[in-house]
Amino acid sequence: MPRPKHNQNIREQLLDRGVEILIDQGYHGTGIKEVVDRVKVPKGSFYNYFKSKEDFGAEVIRQYARQWIANMDAWLNDPNQDSFDALKQFFEQEILRHEKAREGCLIGNLGAELGDSSEPCRQAMSESLQLIQQRFVRILTKAQKQGTVRNNLAAEELASILLNAYEGALLRMQIEKSVEPLRQFTKVMVDDFLRLK
Amino acid sequence: MPRPKHNQNIREQLLDRGVEILIDQGYHGTGIKEVVDRVKVPKGSFYNYFKSKEDFGAEVIRQYARQWIANMDAWLNDPNQDSFDALKQFFEQEILRHEKAREGCLIGNLGAELGDSSEPCRQAMSESLQLIQQRFVRILTKAQKQGTVRNNLAAEELASILLNAYEGALLRMQIEKSVEPLRQFTKVMVDDFLRLK
Repeated sequence: MPRPKHNQNIREQLLDRGVEILIDQGYHGTGIKEVVDRVKVPKGSFYNYFKSKEDFGAEVIRQYARQWIANMDAWLNDPNQDSFDALKQFFEQEILRHEKAREGCLIGNLGAELGDSSEPCRQAMSESLQLIQQRFVRILTKAQKQGTVRNNLAAEELASILLNAYEGALLRMQIEKSVEPLRQFTKVMVDDFLRLK
Repeated sequence: MPRPKHNQNIREQLLDRGVEILIDQGYHGTGIKEVVDRVKVPKGSFYNYFKSKEDFGAEVIRQYARQWIANMDAWLNDPNQDSFDALKQFFEQEILRHEKAREGCLIGNLGAELGDSSEPCRQAMSESLQLIQQRFVRILTKAQKQGTVRNNLAAEELASILLNAYEGALLRMQIEKSVEPLRQFTKVMVDDFLRLK
């Protein structure tokens, strides 16, 4: 029997549904059957696109990071805007978004669930956080040049602290069922810690 | 048949082994059988101590918080020491401890795994983080009075930001398999952000 043609569209759909389901149910709580049912393809065809559930998990993490970066770019890439204001607006729209759906970060949640039990997923998470962090480095470097962000620490260090503290705030949001930790993050870490006085 | 006598010592042992296993394998990856086997009691006796796995999970979270707080108190309750130095030493010994065993925080990990899918566990996590946070509030209030910690923000707010950012650093440590995020946290959040210049 000929192997079915690889269909980029189906692969994308599997990844997009994967993001939704994994963020909701975690890695161990998600079955491949559930993912293929949502895309309405037979279970066997899953293996035309992914070697294993673990391979799928790693690619879902990368898909999620692409979505996050596209969202960041939409907020941070306006050349007419002051960089500090753009960064602040990015975090403010994140609060609004999480007020509607209090879901955490897929990478943070899978990081906590999987630890280092899956090397392909761990690598995908590490690479994804690096890519996201690089976007923060870029905007913070600009803001430092514009004189709005503190410059006693390198943009790389500020970006890493910012991202990790934000992951912590997202985690606390899930435990408290409240976006208050995100509001506090924006007030203290962005408005107070980052801003050059 | 008479109901076996409730044995406080066995309950404690079940909770202590629960902390070890849950931190390693997560909530869904842990079976009751595994816990009772470690304590060498029959599976049926588990239900003399806990109503359900969920009840056990919530009590394990509280046990873990008690351990964390006892460790904090050992470092933070020396009346002869400067409060800022005590806080810094607490985080420095945390780095040393995690260099040996790179395990994350049980509360952070279960928070990410369970989200709000178990209300008893979520409540135990929320209460536990509040208790831990209160210890930070106490030491930060003292340090503010001693003039070593910034006082433009309330100790409650500083404590919450500090705890959430630390949870984020522990998460990143697990993903990167490196204590570097903890070192950076201590350098930037404690030495730079908290300290009154």
